[in-house]
Amino acid sequence: MFAKRTDLALEARELWQESAGKTTRLTGVKAVKRKQEGYPVTRVDILDRRGEEALGKPRGSYLTVDLTTFWQRKSDFFQRAVRAVGTPLKELLPTEGPVLVVGLGNRAMTPDAVGPLTADHVLVTRHLISAMPRQFSGFRPVSVLRSGVLGTTGVESAEAVRGLASEVKPACVIAVDALASRRVGRVCAAVQLSDTGIIPGSGVGNHRHPLNAETLGVPVIAIGVPTVVDSATLAADLLEETGVTDYDEEKLRASRQNLMVTPRDIDQQVRDLGKVIGYGINWALQDLDIDEMNALLS
Amino acid sequence: MFAKRTDLALEARELWQESAGKTTRLTGVKAVKRKQEGYPVTRVDILDRRGEEALGKPRGSYLTVDLTTFWQRKSDFFQRAVRAVGTPLKELLPTEGPVLVVGLGNRAMTPDAVGPLTADHVLVTRHLISAMPRQFSGFRPVSVLRSGVLGTTGVESAEAVRGLASEVKPACVIAVDALASRRVGRVCAAVQLSDTGIIPGSGVGNHRHPLNAETLGVPVIAIGVPTVVDSATLAADLLEETGVTDYDEEKLRASRQNLMVTPRDIDQQVRDLGKVIGYGINWALQDLDIDEMNALLS
Amino acid sequence: MFAKRTDLALEARELWQESAGKTTRLTGVKAVKRKQEGYPVTRVDILDRRGEEALGKPRGSYLTVDLTTFWQRKSDFFQRAVRAVGTPLKELLPTEGPVLVVGLGNRAMTPDAVGPLTADHVLVTRHLISAMPRQFSGFRPVSVLRSGVLGTTGVESAEAVRGLASEVKPACVIAVDALASRRVGRVCAAVQLSDTGIIPGSGVGNHRHPLNAETLGVPVIAIGVPTVVDSATLAADLLEETGVTDYDEEKLRASRQNLMVTPRDIDQQVRDLGKVIGYGINWALQDLDIDEMNALLS
Amino acid sequence: MFAKRTDLALEARELWQESAGKTTRLTGVKAVKRKQEGYPVTRVDILDRRGEEALGKPRGSYLTVDLTTFWQRKSDFFQRAVRAVGTPLKELLPTEGPVLVVGLGNRAMTPDAVGPLTADHVLVTRHLISAMPRQFSGFRPVSVLRSGVLGTTGVESAEAVRGLASEVKPACVIAVDALASRRVGRVCAAVQLSDTGIIPGSGVGNHRHPLNAETLGVPVIAIGVPTVVDSATLAADLLEETGVTDYDEEKLRASRQNLMVTPRDIDQQVRDLGKVIGYGINWALQDLDIDEMNALLS
Repeated sequence: MFAKRTDLALEARELWQESAGKTTRLTGVKAVKRKQEGYPVTRVDILDRRGEEALGKPRGSYLTVDLTTFWQRKSDFFQRAVRAVGTPLKELLPTEGPVLVVGLGNRAMTPDAVGPLTADHVLVTRHLISAMPRQFSGFRPVSVLRSGVLGTTGVESAEAVRGLASEVKPACVIAVDALASRRVGRVCAAVQLSDTGIIPGSGVGNHRHPLNAETLGVPVIAIGVPTVVDSATLAADLLEETGVTDYDEEKLRASRQNLMVTPRDIDQQVRDLGKVIGYGINWALQDLDIDEMNALLS
Repeated sequence: MFAKRTDLALEARELWQESAGKTTRLTGVKAVKRKQEGYPVTRVDILDRRGEEALGKPRGSYLTVDLTTFWQRKSDFFQRAVRAVGTPLKELLPTEGPVLVVGLGNRAMTPDAVGPLTADHVLVTRHLISAMPRQFSGFRPVSVLRSGVLGTTGVESAEAVRGLASEVKPACVIAVDALASRRVGRVCAAVQLSDTGIIPGSGVGNHRHPLNAETLGVPVIAIGVPTVVDSATLAADLLEETGVTDYDEEKLRASRQNLMVTPRDIDQQVRDLGKVIGYGINWALQDLDIDEMNALLS
Repeated sequence: MFAKRTDLALEARELWQESAGKTTRLTGVKAVKRKQEGYPVTRVDILDRRGEEALGKPRGSYLTVDLTTFWQRKSDFFQRAVRAVGTPLKELLPTEGPVLVVGLGNRAMTPDAVGPLTADHVLVTRHLISAMPRQFSGFRPVSVLRSGVLGTTGVESAEAVRGLASEVKPACVIAVDALASRRVGRVCAAVQLSDTGIIPGSGVGNHRHPLNAETLGVPVIAIGVPTVVDSATLAADLLEETGVTDYDEEKLRASRQNLMVTPRDIDQQVRDLGKVIGYGINWALQDLDIDEMNALLS
Repeated sequence: MFAKRTDLALEARELWQESAGKTTRLTGVKAVKRKQEGYPVTRVDILDRRGEEALGKPRGSYLTVDLTTFWQRKSDFFQRAVRAVGTPLKELLPTEGPVLVVGLGNRAMTPDAVGPLTADHVLVTRHLISAMPRQFSGFRPVSVLRSGVLGTTGVESAEAVRGLASEVKPACVIAVDALASRRVGRVCAAVQLSDTGIIPGSGVGNHRHPLNAETLGVPVIAIGVPTVVDSATLAADLLEETGVTDYDEEKLRASRQNLMVTPRDIDQQVRDLGKVIGYGINWALQDLDIDEMNALLS
């Protein structure tokens, strides 16, 4: 077994438990499971220094919605998913003040496009509230940044967000990005929401400057979806299932860094997830039902 | 004759002369014609208060490159156009320091897309210089902003530029946008460069907050291309040519505000112009020939 | 007054009446007005040789739906428009047998994109019926051709349709294209349905080989939307309104052939119209309501 | 070791040798290696029934160009690659007569987009030759079909090609598609050309009706690029490298059918390969150098 990298607190906890053994107890971390609109939600709270060290993640709350059954497209699956994402988001958000939603990642690279695709479904209201106060005074001010890609802007996402935030002065930033998972089964099937910020490009791109309360001066809620696993993770997963244990993990980890593993219909899946998360953000921020969102966003 | 709106200093001068009569002399404005790579260039300098009032534009230099013959696609038309745009730009630019290029306008609306299309051809170097100083130390640092559309961002272009400029700290901003012309013949055939800044959305969108040295704290070089005329301008142009003079200009001006007049192949033309201007910017900023740009931008 | 070109039978009839004088009676043509879902519908039937000569169009039925009020976006405007387009279509269609829907025009050129955009909203069923007969046996077999542009295929649309029809063997072809109008007010506001076939590219492109029962061997229902007027039409319209009558019509007609006049928000309008027509086709062909179409097409 | 599926004759031969043992000799198959413009080319000829059975592929010639070093972007890599693809293509093509180029696959799904992307770079001449015989009589007539996806057309690619071929009457069809490989190292690094036709969708889609001389009545030259490997292939590859041999191959093969493995920068790679193959086709068909292609295709 090797220390697979993961962006999900849920998985970091599983990994810790695997390596520590079943009987050891993890301290400094609290985990609770529940159901939200039929979708399982796991809340992991990292409470103190020991928890941070055990899971390799900063103190805070991490809620993961399991959307595996979304793809079975059963009754009301979309509406339920919107609320299943929107409700935990509401728990993490400040109750009032303007919000800046940031779609991180590269629209031209499918597994990295979930941020920009989400941005397209967010109801943008900031300019309407000042232009038509009578009709829009009931809305929470929302602006959107598609931060683009370093290669075509020359600017780090963190710089772009900080610059815009200095103008828009949001009470809170919501940053949406693709993540990496260690479990093939969680690809395009889990949405993690946390109040600890994000390092853009964890999933597909390179590690870059963090977006968090320290660097931006306001709370940063991160929403992430694993859209790829690396090839070593896939191989290790497959080996475990087939009962092989005596492989050279270092060699496996080193090879094929330039490959990624995605679902065959990744294009459709990231499009659907972008809509679920965008609508989930609207659901958490505005007093609207889904039909009203459809009408306003068409 | 009615006071047609124009973004081109060249045309404002023509209009002043038409309404003042041929024998009256315009003071406070200097105009010089020359050829650049076979393309006519007119430089209009507004020198003082009287010039500003006569032309309705702020003091400064306005260079207009006439690319009419570009569309005949004669020998080296593209390379010559790049240098014909790049050379006047060099005259207006500070000789050193980082540059922020802003592509204004709406990529999804063809006649408004010249800004974003230009941005796609600008050589972005800021991040390369810090990441690979040995190879890229000879380049001038360039970053790019595609400011997007108010309806999908909630943020005025001027706010977005100011925010990013506070991070990037450019010595100069180059802002590219679609303009309005009063002459059908100048649509997609003139490029105006000026050192006086720009009001985004003059051509196709609505009037918005200005981008200039006063609002940004650094010089703003504007590059604009007329891509539409309004229907009243077209009708007045056609009437003049057919010898009609006794029409009700107020009525003409009032009608059909929601229509625009563009070339039939506007899609191809804005794509070509975006490439000419993008390469012209590279030509003015970097020590590269066009083959080298092709290699770096492919 | 000059003989403005029009693709709409409705307008050809108006023009005939204008030039013939109010008291002369048009024979060989029958015209009836009605309302469909709140939208006015005019049915013009060209009955014989005299009617053909008077209107310059082949014998057959031409139904024009006036969607002017669609853009006011009042209650149920979309659903009503779908049925207002779908009901006349049903009148023209054979009651059973497979259908081939052809989206004519150039997706990359906004005012010419209404055909391909419509195609994207047509429920494609032919392959489903053979693959999953149990679930889809209730559907009418529909296939779709996006015929593309001569410059990028080397093939006339009529050839492409004839070739595919020889494989698919439809009972009927529905061909959707952009048209030209002589009235600015009808641009993006009228949908004409006829059982007489179509000459692709009438609106924006060049005249090409016809698609009709004679060339294809099966009935061709044409659905057309005017998306542009030419600049001479605009100028003539404006002049009439301002009371000018003494202009040189030949000169006006000759000039500015390379310009087109479109609504400022043509991008949004052709997108909306493509959806209305696509759903209208589904409404005429399949036993589905609009919510069911949404579910199947998402 | 398990019988991994491969579309490459080259690999089928390797697999046969692996399973038969090093000392057994393969009859009915001839293989020759050479260099073309610095890129290795392997020609495999399947000569008779025994060869067909051994490799599981029809009799004919299979030339594979190894573009691995293309990605190092050394001197003239693009021009050399165009000629390295174009020269073997010339060997397989009939020397004269019209050609129909078919871009198979789904433009919206990155690893399946190599066919449509190639089509965008093919010089389309059929319509020009008849419209401007004086200027274009020296060109070979070329038309292009982008056959689209069953789900959005309702029509099998083979039906669409057969229908269009009945109109265009080509002397030869060139069909371009994504393939599957059994070697991770060949993904986006090998181009196979063969004179035996193709089964569309082998790489990413499902198996469908074949395109070959039997079904179309004219020779079908297939050009294929592996753009994905399946996850079982990846895992098996990795295991071999790490020295594991005792795994349950059936289990490995059965799992994760819905995943695919691609390069991280697949978007860029298929774009580049589409251009190389499109220009290679032009190089084989027309008497043009690459600068002339650039000028005609811009």
